[in-house]
Amino acid sequence: MSSFICVLKEDGVATVTLSRGKVNALNEATVEELYVRFRSLEGDASVSSVVLTGAGKFFSFGFDIPEFLEYSRESFTRYLRLFSRFYAYLFLFPKPVIAALNGHTIAGGCMLALACDQRLMVAGKGKISLNEINFGSSVFAGSTAMLKACVGERAARDVLFSGSMFSAEEALMLGLVDKVVPQEDLMPLAARAARELGGKNAAAFRSVKSLLRKPVADEAAGREEASIREFVEIWYSPETWKNLKEIKIAP
Amino acid sequence: MSSFICVLKEDGVATVTLSRGKVNALNEATVEELYVRFRSLEGDASVSSVVLTGAGKFFSFGFDIPEFLEYSRESFTRYLRLFSRFYAYLFLFPKPVIAALNGHTIAGGCMLALACDQRLMVAGKGKISLNEINFGSSVFAGSTAMLKACVGERAARDVLFSGSMFSAEEALMLGLVDKVVPQEDLMPLAARAARELGGKNAAAFRSVKSLLRKPVADEAAGREEASIREFVEIWYSPETWKNLKEIKIAP
Amino acid sequence: MSSFICVLKEDGVATVTLSRGKVNALNEATVEELYVRFRSLEGDASVSSVVLTGAGKFFSFGFDIPEFLEYSRESFTRYLRLFSRFYAYLFLFPKPVIAALNGHTIAGGCMLALACDQRLMVAGKGKISLNEINFGSSVFAGSTAMLKACVGERAARDVLFSGSMFSAEEALMLGLVDKVVPQEDLMPLAARAARELGGKNAAAFRSVKSLLRKPVADEAAGREEASIREFVEIWYSPETWKNLKEIKIAP
Repeated sequence: MSSFICVLKEDGVATVTLSRGKVNALNEATVEELYVRFRSLEGDASVSSVVLTGAGKFFSFGFDIPEFLEYSRESFTRYLRLFSRFYAYLFLFPKPVIAALNGHTIAGGCMLALACDQRLMVAGKGKISLNEINFGSSVFAGSTAMLKACVGERAARDVLFSGSMFSAEEALMLGLVDKVVPQEDLMPLAARAARELGGKNAAAFRSVKSLLRKPVADEAAGREEASIREFVEIWYSPETWKNLKEIKIAP
Repeated sequence: MSSFICVLKEDGVATVTLSRGKVNALNEATVEELYVRFRSLEGDASVSSVVLTGAGKFFSFGFDIPEFLEYSRESFTRYLRLFSRFYAYLFLFPKPVIAALNGHTIAGGCMLALACDQRLMVAGKGKISLNEINFGSSVFAGSTAMLKACVGERAARDVLFSGSMFSAEEALMLGLVDKVVPQEDLMPLAARAARELGGKNAAAFRSVKSLLRKPVADEAAGREEASIREFVEIWYSPETWKNLKEIKIAP
Repeated sequence: MSSFICVLKEDGVATVTLSRGKVNALNEATVEELYVRFRSLEGDASVSSVVLTGAGKFFSFGFDIPEFLEYSRESFTRYLRLFSRFYAYLFLFPKPVIAALNGHTIAGGCMLALACDQRLMVAGKGKISLNEINFGSSVFAGSTAMLKACVGERAARDVLFSGSMFSAEEALMLGLVDKVVPQEDLMPLAARAARELGGKNAAAFRSVKSLLRKPVADEAAGREEASIREFVEIWYSPETWKNLKEIKIAP
């Protein structure tokens, strides 16, 4: 089995790097591997906190749309459930997770970033976006709830209705990222943030994180399966399918 | 039947204009007609989005208090249920609705504005307010939830506890409106915003809007009937009734 | 029975002053007395609104940790339930409550401040903090929900994860306090704010406050007992206990 995830541990911080092609596109194998790796880090007493980042110029471009065009509807739905399960798990991960956004952070990639505890983004190097609406796709109940928790209801509306590609600096103003840093500082500062949160009393951190996030997660959980089914309906509609095939042709 | 609502369609945008007397005060017939017209626009394939505005110098001054003073308690309660049904319907309307606030937007008028997707307000021409507390009235569970979703919990407290009349510019700072524009630009910019959102994939827009707003609406729905009953109790209390009668005398 | 609470009434405003030792530390007797006094003010027709403040240089340093180290686990748990009952009651208190933060407002002290309707803080004189995480303690579902309602989800995360001691000016930026005032103006301005809110129609105020806060309170109420049990588990863990004993030694 080839691996799309690289995990390095140093000083109590595990750095998880998405590494799949040029754009770190997400498919079933990648998401499954992310889940397995994080499960392992959850139980690893030598790991106090995690940094999640991407290799190359992208954090992640989101779902691997060309690959998914080949999936059956059933397989695609199964993938969505896995993806949803993973980001819901990540959102409540009992240890601190810092997203080090090294470049473009788009759609499903942005959803993963939103599930982390803090987001650092490299300056002037990439866009962050939930651009689904612009190719005729919806999003999910869980990712919408995480976005609201991150930026508030009003900015969530602006992000989702516009589908805009935000620079790191714009994302900072919106609250979509917490800090914008020069490229050379990204990984050191992410590791520092991870060590800082990882240095807190682990039980107290876990408890406080759960008090903050469990109400958000619980409210969304009851809506998630219906939102996945609606997502699939829209995805396979003729108008959206046509857009998706054009994405396939793009370089 | 005389009509208090004017609907014009152009380029996929339906402009719905409140047109009742000088202040576009809301009564049962107006709210019922708004509901019927929006239901019709929902099913009208030629309409992609809606602009809601008012004729003259007011968007709406809110409930027609002098008229309601003549209602029986039962009739007034029935009106409140219709009003509540309409703004709840508007809040989840599956097509984009832009509020073009052409002037004073007060109390019930502000509640309608809050149910829209975006609010543009004319500069220097009117006040926006949920001033109920200042004549001894409460508001509703639904309108409170919509206000919170619009401006956040803290500003919602300030808006409702003070009952202040905010200028468009102050409302922009609070997040109560999204844009303040010169009078001559109001309708063109509202139409442009409507075309922009109306140009998105309709199914994706509807789904995303529902993901954003259904949790808000569902939470409030369970509290709405009790809040209407409490509203009525307070409305008919001697102290509030005295205030309401003074509003009657006002020009 | 010695009293830790002083209540003065003037012009319809009751000023409740915490007065226990140098730091107004909270113990069972203090919280029980607060509850009894507020219950009495709720029913007192001569009182329209309340100011809550502290004697000396502290609003409150929070729980009386040295005293609680002598408690049995059962007694401490009983205290937590009383404390939780009191702040939940205060959060929904039907009359306006203004917190006049005269100095350090820490941990449990900050939770009481969050339950008030407005927070005025003296400039340059004290810190405000939910610093529990830094001695290895968690917080509660209710206090987390009140913090979120006050500052939003994102700032709530920053406040709780960092455990930072904020100056009044920093707290103002965060939204943790509403106004920062010179020491000599604190009580007059708090009384003015109390008179202003207390001058509103009492039934309308009570109703609007409930519409704003009941959804927050209800959501948290279902999680409170479990969060108290988790708090106790963490409090008595060896690592946290060691920290608590060091606090005991501090002057």
